[in-house]
Amino acid sequence: MYHKRIPQLSTDYYQLSMSNVFVNDNKKDDIAVFDLFIRNNPFNGGYTVCAGLEQVINYLMNVHFSQDDITMLRENHPELSNEFLDYLSTFKFTGELHAIPEGTIIFPHEPILRVKAPLIQAQIIETSLLTIINHQTLIATKAARIVQSAEGDSVLEFGLRRAHGSQAGLYGARAAIIGGCVGTSNVEVESIVNIPAKGTMSHSYILSYDNEYEAFEKFSYYNPDNLMLLVDTYNTLKSGIPNAIKVFLKLKEENKLPDIYGIRLDSGDLAYLSKECRKMLDGAGFPNAIISASSDLDEYLIRDLKLQGAKITLWGVGTKLITAYDQPALGAVYKLSQIEHLGQRINKIKVSNDPGKITNPGYKKAVRIYDKSSNKALADVIMIDDEVIDESKPLTIFHPVYTWKKRILFNYRAQNLLVPIIVDGKLVYDLPTIREIQSRLKEEYKSIWPAITRFTNPHEYHVDLSPKLWNLKNELLNEQ
Amino acid sequence: MYHKRIPQLSTDYYQLSMSNVFVNDNKKDDIAVFDLFIRNNPFNGGYTVCAGLEQVINYLMNVHFSQDDITMLRENHPELSNEFLDYLSTFKFTGELHAIPEGTIIFPHEPILRVKAPLIQAQIIETSLLTIINHQTLIATKAARIVQSAEGDSVLEFGLRRAHGSQAGLYGARAAIIGGCVGTSNVEVESIVNIPAKGTMSHSYILSYDNEYEAFEKFSYYNPDNLMLLVDTYNTLKSGIPNAIKVFLKLKEENKLPDIYGIRLDSGDLAYLSKECRKMLDGAGFPNAIISASSDLDEYLIRDLKLQGAKITLWGVGTKLITAYDQPALGAVYKLSQIEHLGQRINKIKVSNDPGKITNPGYKKAVRIYDKSSNKALADVIMIDDEVIDESKPLTIFHPVYTWKKRILFNYRAQNLLVPIIVDGKLVYDLPTIREIQSRLKEEYKSIWPAITRFTNPHEYHVDLSPKLWNLKNELLNEQ
Repeated sequence: MYHKRIPQLSTDYYQLSMSNVFVNDNKKDDIAVFDLFIRNNPFNGGYTVCAGLEQVINYLMNVHFSQDDITMLRENHPELSNEFLDYLSTFKFTGELHAIPEGTIIFPHEPILRVKAPLIQAQIIETSLLTIINHQTLIATKAARIVQSAEGDSVLEFGLRRAHGSQAGLYGARAAIIGGCVGTSNVEVESIVNIPAKGTMSHSYILSYDNEYEAFEKFSYYNPDNLMLLVDTYNTLKSGIPNAIKVFLKLKEENKLPDIYGIRLDSGDLAYLSKECRKMLDGAGFPNAIISASSDLDEYLIRDLKLQGAKITLWGVGTKLITAYDQPALGAVYKLSQIEHLGQRINKIKVSNDPGKITNPGYKKAVRIYDKSSNKALADVIMIDDEVIDESKPLTIFHPVYTWKKRILFNYRAQNLLVPIIVDGKLVYDLPTIREIQSRLKEEYKSIWPAITRFTNPHEYHVDLSPKLWNLKNELLNEQ
Repeated sequence: MYHKRIPQLSTDYYQLSMSNVFVNDNKKDDIAVFDLFIRNNPFNGGYTVCAGLEQVINYLMNVHFSQDDITMLRENHPELSNEFLDYLSTFKFTGELHAIPEGTIIFPHEPILRVKAPLIQAQIIETSLLTIINHQTLIATKAARIVQSAEGDSVLEFGLRRAHGSQAGLYGARAAIIGGCVGTSNVEVESIVNIPAKGTMSHSYILSYDNEYEAFEKFSYYNPDNLMLLVDTYNTLKSGIPNAIKVFLKLKEENKLPDIYGIRLDSGDLAYLSKECRKMLDGAGFPNAIISASSDLDEYLIRDLKLQGAKITLWGVGTKLITAYDQPALGAVYKLSQIEHLGQRINKIKVSNDPGKITNPGYKKAVRIYDKSSNKALADVIMIDDEVIDESKPLTIFHPVYTWKKRILFNYRAQNLLVPIIVDGKLVYDLPTIREIQSRLKEEYKSIWPAITRFTNPHEYHVDLSPKLWNLKNELLNEQ
């Protein structure tokens, strides 16, 4: 039997040992507010693309513990009380979730998710929320950068074999599509999104035949509408391309050449080879033949190849995308910001010697300020949830540390980033399709200045605090 | 509903488009031999720890395609023929698998898995085998290095929230235990191995109380046998340790101090803080209190902290372990080495301009040569499967490229690394427990010279080819 995964148990044990105290110490129903946020953009970049909300919703709407789970925990952990295990057997999420929709461009310190729920619930769900958001947001951001580097060319996700297991491959591919990839090689993705997987042949396929031409010819015969010939098994320019052209000529003669066809390069100097291939294909009468490439690509190599005039218009990106190779962990955290105990609401702050690790207290929202004439995003402001921005008046924003750095904004509109997702345990959000999420990101790019999205030394987007939140934070810091 | 994972669809689409040809071109029952191997040790290291075989077996013994799978593929891929989809509906693995057991120390170019099966079967299983072995072998090797750096101290795996999804967390934790971790925070691991998950409390638990002492005291009361107090929420030396000592004194007075108890540091200068904590704990009469630490640890930081005299004996390692942060992909490949078509057996080689990427042809085995007196591994030899080493005679081995580099070995014994796992589709292997795999690795270390296992500039372990295999390879290269 395949091992049946038990997502409710995919949690850190300390969530259970803490909850064991909360049940016995009558704290479990204290109302807690937690924010899930990042502290830095990944890849030394200037922005982040959030993803994973659909799987978070799926988890929260279904999480429960079976009798088998309880029995296993009871046997393995005599320290867990019966009171707690009884509670766990009835566990369900009855709280509230607000979130920034998938495909939104976000920045550090903004709550991607804001949970308000009985303390024990908010605690038990922590690890799953982090695991899901950390993974998909990381890969969506990497994909977005790679797609950005391809400047309108199509990018395919090809990394399943290097993913951290099949599930990482599946949701990594989903995140890659959110980031702008047009498709993936991963067939399982068809079970969650309506996008057929892509691919044609490997080197072993060609080696399994006596010669390259025969392998190409048979492939074209049995897969007439899916013709992307891998030309580097023996020698790209001396064997691969001539054999591909021979097949294309034959198909043309038989009126069987499909609309979309071409070749794939998987090794060698892709700039030089693609230019030579282009000449040979054009010279043989196939200017529409697509030249695709796959070989340890990432956003930097694609940018360099394009600068060198590579004639590639379809990019298959594997390892570097599916593992977010240059920074394979995002580091989002989930921090308590308020707790209500016996009717008393207390704002919470986590102090640290590292000022970047000090949290923002309170029940908060994040608002994006757009310039009305250019529709460009000017800054984001984190504020107490009930604060209102009067768009008819100028808005003064200031740096949360260097408070003398001020800007006064005019002619702007303010938009809440957080939307209600779950209220009283009930889903109140219409889940968008993956195409809608992908389109949202494309729209988002239009509102972000290029200074923010460039790879090298990007400008830091301003995420400021409202005066009310800044004061609250500083009061709590001074109380320490 | 949770999304039900469909592991048989976790494959690259090209496996299906190639197989579509194999069915229609009467090649599907050609007998193919594929080797799965790495080309380099990860982390610039000198060795690799193989892991993932149990999940490979689980996959091969169960892989099949349901009618729903077939229907989905038919709808999404009109290019797939009915003949192929009919074949797929009856798919099962009927071939042969040999493998190097989990927990073995291995080196580049050795077949970790050797598959001999009808071509179409060997092809369709490729992606899953790579995904499983690449992931678990990567994490097991990272864990082994971290455990090595801890020099006998215990190491716990704490990375679930930074894993690439919950499944990466689960099998990453399994691989970490193979690599020598004594446990994990991940509760789901209890469903696949008999090792209870570990953990106590987070900062938010402490913040949920009015003060640190109350949080500690309540925890000790309700989790009396699981007492590892997190001391850095406010100020480690001024608040955390004094409050922890207060709780330990109270428990001591009440005769309730458990055998295993201590504190956890999660920030700050771990070398300095641990030494100060040790003094304070010793001074208060708690020389047995464990000092544990967790804060962006990896093998290099642990080694440095130990060199600086840190008084930490329990290490919780998260992000850097579960993502193999400094090299998050292994890059194992799966290459055709022989094919039998219409009764004719043909050895296959994949050429490349990069000599390191040229494959070894034929149906091969890997043999480890041990010095009989020291029991140290001297070298590995890859050879044709039916070759025999006569241990009574000296053995001359030579470098596969610089063939003048020769060694003559005396007084040695030779041991096959590959063992039969599946024969004619039937499991012939007794799966070891995780503890047995962990013990195997501990034994393996004894046979490997320290020159191979050091982190910086390790000596390259010799993996040579037998004269017969070397000749076969060079004949095929010269035929190109």
